[in-house]
Amino acid sequence: MKASGSAGNAGRIVTLRDVAKLAGVSVATASKALNGQPQVRAETRTRVLAAAEQLSFFPNALAQGLIGQRTGTVGLLTSDLEGRFSIPILMGAEDAFGSGQTSVFLCDARGDAIRERHHLRALLSRRVDGLIVVGARPDTRPSLGRDLPVPVVYAYAPSDDPADLSLVTDNVGAGRMATGHLLDCGRRRIAHITGDPAYGAAQDRAKGTLDRLAEEGLELAGGQVWFGMWSEAWGRGATRMLLRRSPDVDAIFAGSDEIARGVLDVLHQEGIDVPSQVAVMGFDNWAILAANARPPLTTIDMNLELLGRLAAQRLFAAIDGTLGSGVESIACRLVTRDSTAPVG
Amino acid sequence: MKASGSAGNAGRIVTLRDVAKLAGVSVATASKALNGQPQVRAETRTRVLAAAEQLSFFPNALAQGLIGQRTGTVGLLTSDLEGRFSIPILMGAEDAFGSGQTSVFLCDARGDAIRERHHLRALLSRRVDGLIVVGARPDTRPSLGRDLPVPVVYAYAPSDDPADLSLVTDNVGAGRMATGHLLDCGRRRIAHITGDPAYGAAQDRAKGTLDRLAEEGLELAGGQVWFGMWSEAWGRGATRMLLRRSPDVDAIFAGSDEIARGVLDVLHQEGIDVPSQVAVMGFDNWAILAANARPPLTTIDMNLELLGRLAAQRLFAAIDGTLGSGVESIACRLVTRDSTAPVG
Repeated sequence: MKASGSAGNAGRIVTLRDVAKLAGVSVATASKALNGQPQVRAETRTRVLAAAEQLSFFPNALAQGLIGQRTGTVGLLTSDLEGRFSIPILMGAEDAFGSGQTSVFLCDARGDAIRERHHLRALLSRRVDGLIVVGARPDTRPSLGRDLPVPVVYAYAPSDDPADLSLVTDNVGAGRMATGHLLDCGRRRIAHITGDPAYGAAQDRAKGTLDRLAEEGLELAGGQVWFGMWSEAWGRGATRMLLRRSPDVDAIFAGSDEIARGVLDVLHQEGIDVPSQVAVMGFDNWAILAANARPPLTTIDMNLELLGRLAAQRLFAAIDGTLGSGVESIACRLVTRDSTAPVG
Repeated sequence: MKASGSAGNAGRIVTLRDVAKLAGVSVATASKALNGQPQVRAETRTRVLAAAEQLSFFPNALAQGLIGQRTGTVGLLTSDLEGRFSIPILMGAEDAFGSGQTSVFLCDARGDAIRERHHLRALLSRRVDGLIVVGARPDTRPSLGRDLPVPVVYAYAPSDDPADLSLVTDNVGAGRMATGHLLDCGRRRIAHITGDPAYGAAQDRAKGTLDRLAEEGLELAGGQVWFGMWSEAWGRGATRMLLRRSPDVDAIFAGSDEIARGVLDVLHQEGIDVPSQVAVMGFDNWAILAANARPPLTTIDMNLELLGRLAAQRLFAAIDGTLGSGVESIACRLVTRDSTAPVG
């Protein structure tokens, strides 16, 4: 596997070896990670992909050979009403091969099967090379079936057909990551306030949290996971209940940045300092909510742009019939701001 | 002009007369408003369009005749990174002729001219019937030119070529509307904290505010418009400065919901009750920020779905060469929640 030259790298050709070195893995592992082979751990794959991106490394076959035989156009079929998760995935897919090489056409099906079929026909009749299907929520969704003329990658929400290829967020790992950060800050009485328990993501993040606490011999402050809604109002209500039951809580991990904003609001009302008395974490790294909070929120970023890039690379690689199947997990990353800090 | 039947109306055919009656205008005015003729005031046009929508009134020529000769596909070229303004415009355009009759393909150019040209070629080569161009901010943007094979409507940001058709928000009217609501609540010491003064929308909203106050012989509390940034942090900073200069302020009109959230935050910190002591208004009706605020925010909605519907109707009407030119203003609407109330 050779690399395409990168203009930004002073003329030197970036090789797979450079990527492996930067990622701190063997060349064989880097190759497996870039080719989407399943025996690579999510964190490792994410690290290799980030290194490849940082070095502007694109395998020749993808960057030049394959894309030349295609129209360079991908359809993105979403049911994510607010565009909140779809837009970064769209951007990542467009950036998979450098600026101006791919166009992504986004169509919003709004969770309506009839509308989805309509958009699907419109996209297919316009010769898109492949489809990325983004669910409204990170739970299994129906497959579009196996009789489509172009490859399909399911992103964010996995397909219910294991023969399809789905790229999803490692939510269990994300729960572990958030909890690990709070433990690193010296917190021991950690509570978890999260959204709708019908969401697989809420369950998975809670599982990661509980697993990581158990490794330290700890239990959740407040004695339970506080499941509710994905809203600020729930963040406020749950925090009031939590403070009554466990006034000595020293950290709250919220299942979304919205919930975290509600948590912060009640802590301010109660005169509890963040982060010196209680550390607070969100989830999503939704800048408008997280970066502008008082104090700015430490949160978890789902690496959705990376997920979009990977989805586009898998689609274009499928021209020679190598579209994989199964579910690939993408690791999240920690974004630290002022709402968490070591215990003074 | 006859109407297509509406299944939702118990079999009765809705006529233009019904629309005119509901909107409280003459049939001639309703017809002019629906055909986009310029001599109709923005508020009147918006009222007529809302009535037509409420009654499911679609002129036959648009709903059945024209659309049959077209592929029913519109390209939406946006530079609105967060999708915040584009997504409602996309939804409105898709709904212009009923579910499943139109597909909108959204492409994100990210304010980059090269990327925009690339997407433009990709869309045109796929036989879209027309293009809606959505700017990242409500200021004049370069025209795509007159040599395109399909009609173009500029939405949100007007084209710099007066021969193009642009649909924009009536920001001066919106400033008047917000200020009028605060006056209706009995407020007399009204301040205006808004965003970047380089944005035409910020200037226009401020102008509407000042005009309306002048009609009552009033001036702005704080003695100036507080221009700054479109951020919560600026809302906080400006409110602190305002309270020092004009501690008797009784209403604050914020130029965005984000700014309004910062305003609320400082009022809470200072122990000032909202709305009994100070009424607060936002702008945008961005549900995630406005509906979840404490208290929920009264705000201004830009009617972007209506703008999208209208843009799609204009595009499809252009098949017989009647695409207009110039700038059409769409009136905003007031959304009242708990952050404003009459003086006790």
